Amino acid sequence: MSAPLFPQHVIAKKRDGGTLTREEIAAFVRGATDGSWADYQLSALLMAIFLRGMTPEETAHYTDAMMRSGVVADHSAVPGVKVDKHSTGGVGDKVSIPLAPMVVACGVPVPMISGRGLGHSGGTLDKLESIPGFRTDLSLAAYRAQVARLGCALIGQTKDLAPADKKLYALRDVTATVECIPLICGSILSKKLAEGIDALVLDVKFGRGAFMKSKADARRLAEALVSVGRAGGKQVRAVLTAMEQPLGRTVGNALEVAESVACLRGEGTADLMEVTFTLGAHMLILGGVARDVGEARAKLERVVTDGSALVKLREIVAAQGGDARVIDDPSRLPQAGLKVPLAAPRGGFVNDVDAMGVALAALRLGAGRARAEDRIDPAVGVSGLVKMGERVEVGAPLCVIHANDEPALAEAQAMLAKAIVVGDAAVAAPQLIGEIIG
Amino acid sequence: MSAPLFPQHVIAKKRDGGTLTREEIAAFVRGATDGSWADYQLSALLMAIFLRGMTPEETAHYTDAMMRSGVVADHSAVPGVKVDKHSTGGVGDKVSIPLAPMVVACGVPVPMISGRGLGHSGGTLDKLESIPGFRTDLSLAAYRAQVARLGCALIGQTKDLAPADKKLYALRDVTATVECIPLICGSILSKKLAEGIDALVLDVKFGRGAFMKSKADARRLAEALVSVGRAGGKQVRAVLTAMEQPLGRTVGNALEVAESVACLRGEGTADLMEVTFTLGAHMLILGGVARDVGEARAKLERVVTDGSALVKLREIVAAQGGDARVIDDPSRLPQAGLKVPLAAPRGGFVNDVDAMGVALAALRLGAGRARAEDRIDPAVGVSGLVKMGERVEVGAPLCVIHANDEPALAEAQAMLAKAIVVGDAAVAAPQLIGEIIG
Repeated sequence: MSAPLFPQHVIAKKRDGGTLTREEIAAFVRGATDGSWADYQLSALLMAIFLRGMTPEETAHYTDAMMRSGVVADHSAVPGVKVDKHSTGGVGDKVSIPLAPMVVACGVPVPMISGRGLGHSGGTLDKLESIPGFRTDLSLAAYRAQVARLGCALIGQTKDLAPADKKLYALRDVTATVECIPLICGSILSKKLAEGIDALVLDVKFGRGAFMKSKADARRLAEALVSVGRAGGKQVRAVLTAMEQPLGRTVGNALEVAESVACLRGEGTADLMEVTFTLGAHMLILGGVARDVGEARAKLERVVTDGSALVKLREIVAAQGGDARVIDDPSRLPQAGLKVPLAAPRGGFVNDVDAMGVALAALRLGAGRARAEDRIDPAVGVSGLVKMGERVEVGAPLCVIHANDEPALAEAQAMLAKAIVVGDAAVAAPQLIGEIIG
Repeated sequence: MSAPLFPQHVIAKKRDGGTLTREEIAAFVRGATDGSWADYQLSALLMAIFLRGMTPEETAHYTDAMMRSGVVADHSAVPGVKVDKHSTGGVGDKVSIPLAPMVVACGVPVPMISGRGLGHSGGTLDKLESIPGFRTDLSLAAYRAQVARLGCALIGQTKDLAPADKKLYALRDVTATVECIPLICGSILSKKLAEGIDALVLDVKFGRGAFMKSKADARRLAEALVSVGRAGGKQVRAVLTAMEQPLGRTVGNALEVAESVACLRGEGTADLMEVTFTLGAHMLILGGVARDVGEARAKLERVVTDGSALVKLREIVAAQGGDARVIDDPSRLPQAGLKVPLAAPRGGFVNDVDAMGVALAALRLGAGRARAEDRIDPAVGVSGLVKMGERVEVGAPLCVIHANDEPALAEAQAMLAKAIVVGDAAVAAPQLIGEIIG
């Protein structure tokens, strides 16, 4: 029998820069799950971890304990290597919606558990729920059954999966302990590992519209995620991608679903397709159905061209209770009452489209949540966004604003007029794809 | 109108090594008092302060805000400079009990608010309450009135005085954020400044039986206390004193009251009198009734010799409901059922009396509290302790153990036999009084 681990002693050890054992970390995570540690003890240790850090081994133990705090989904009945994708979050980042059906159509199962939007960054669940009837709150049993049947399900975190993460994330949010690489690793990976995958491709974003502003920070996070994921016995690869301007031409929930469908029709904007194909290629490689990026990319392009990815999306939408007719008729998606173009104040080249500025305008319109308890409006947002480097004539639309009330429209107009800069210089779009790690 | 101060922003600023403003610190302390900050936010900031520190200015703002979180007692109706003494805590440290009446008998008012024992260290309140009937829970009004009438009252912290400290101290105790100089300063000084004093003499102990093990740490704490106390507009002086062996010859509540009375009869042990006279001398100097240590010490010795300090103690005991007959007949104090001498296993010189070892033996007997909710037994403890450097014959008593149950007695005997070391070398007692700071 080992001595009891008093919370104070574990906290004091980390406070003094010590390395916690697997047992000490397990006691902390168990304390978060069963309430045997008080919230003020959890938050004191979170702050000590924030300031003292955790070694890769500690982070791996933390992730493992968080994963095991609830149910770990089992897809062993489904043949093939199960691969998921996770993005650290960006503006206009609807990649999961076209990507999952493309990868599944290429023969790799994708059990995907996504999150909701908070602050400037959107969430896949909110986007999917703009499809009338679409349910993301499947039970674990229904989720497993759908993965077995269709190769894919797109759901939200259930209360059974990594409950310790839910508890600790909520505490981190109100105690200024969010921006900490080991804690971020544990949070992302515990949920992803609990969903029963074999491999994971990470889209780690950097830039103005990303959580990590600098590429160096994004690289550190990517390296930590890859190393901790591998310590958990999974294949993990990370792609660094720029998040300076929004991805694609829409920001807003139903608008992004419509753009996702367009991608699968072969009408996707170049930057959005580039990120989708790059992430998809690595998913196919890890999934064992392609040997290299060239072969993988050809397969992905084929399932777009032959329509099989679109068929797969339609199946998934129908299986999860959604109105599958939106795939063929996007006008069935929620529509805003006001659709107002923003005219270019001058002719020239688009010198800047500040992702953060556009995101805050969309948030003001009601497309996102300033606080977790806010309700979102699925119809509002921005479509037809110009891209950096594009040529525009004076008076031509820089975007179309979709709003449901006049004051929000007026404020969003002002915000977007500041975020989108037209000038004389023929600037190039920033390089989108950075290193591949792992 | 200033922007609202969100707890997260204040926490993040300190987390990143920033210096908090007076307003930010006031928001934190107000949050602790009125509950507008959650406990987990308070503890996250406490840990950030522990690891990032606070500047002298921040510590002064913190102390001031804590002091103002409740009532500040007003003794302006009492003529003279009101002076108190505070000890950081030691073993056998009953100094306050003989000291307060001595200083009052010399003409300096002493409004004194003391604490209870926790862990290895005793508390003045617990000792006083071993006097039958003695009440330490006077109202602030009764406290003020007694200070005005007798020049002294010996009470406990009321809920009106520095309530923020009560809240934060309880949190620090369970979140491993106790041993932090700025937080210790704030806790000690907010209570002392709230009791309405003009000047304060601090006994900052170092050594095995003290909170601060090294003299260097004790010096840092003393310097911080003096600087923050002065920023609060008070005269403050600190005396560093060694806490290697217990002070005096008794450890235990009623036993220490009896020893305190003996001090005032002129029968005090040298080390106990040395600390009492040194602290008292600086109190008289700050109180304006003596110009230097020599003059002050002569006055203090006189009020012992002429019995006026003992008369003052009798008045205080009677005023607070205690049985004043214990002053003349200590056998009226609670007595333990078992009084067993511990025989010297050999002859020689006392080479060591480990204060911590003796304290833990007394704790085992029931003289202290392992947890705040434990009840203490006023009668038990150790008396007649030998002092380092004294000569003993084989079989002579090293101390007398006062116990109320056999198993505790047996364990305490074993603990004391280890703590008290007799050897051949004629060792000197450690130097007791270190620097005077301020």
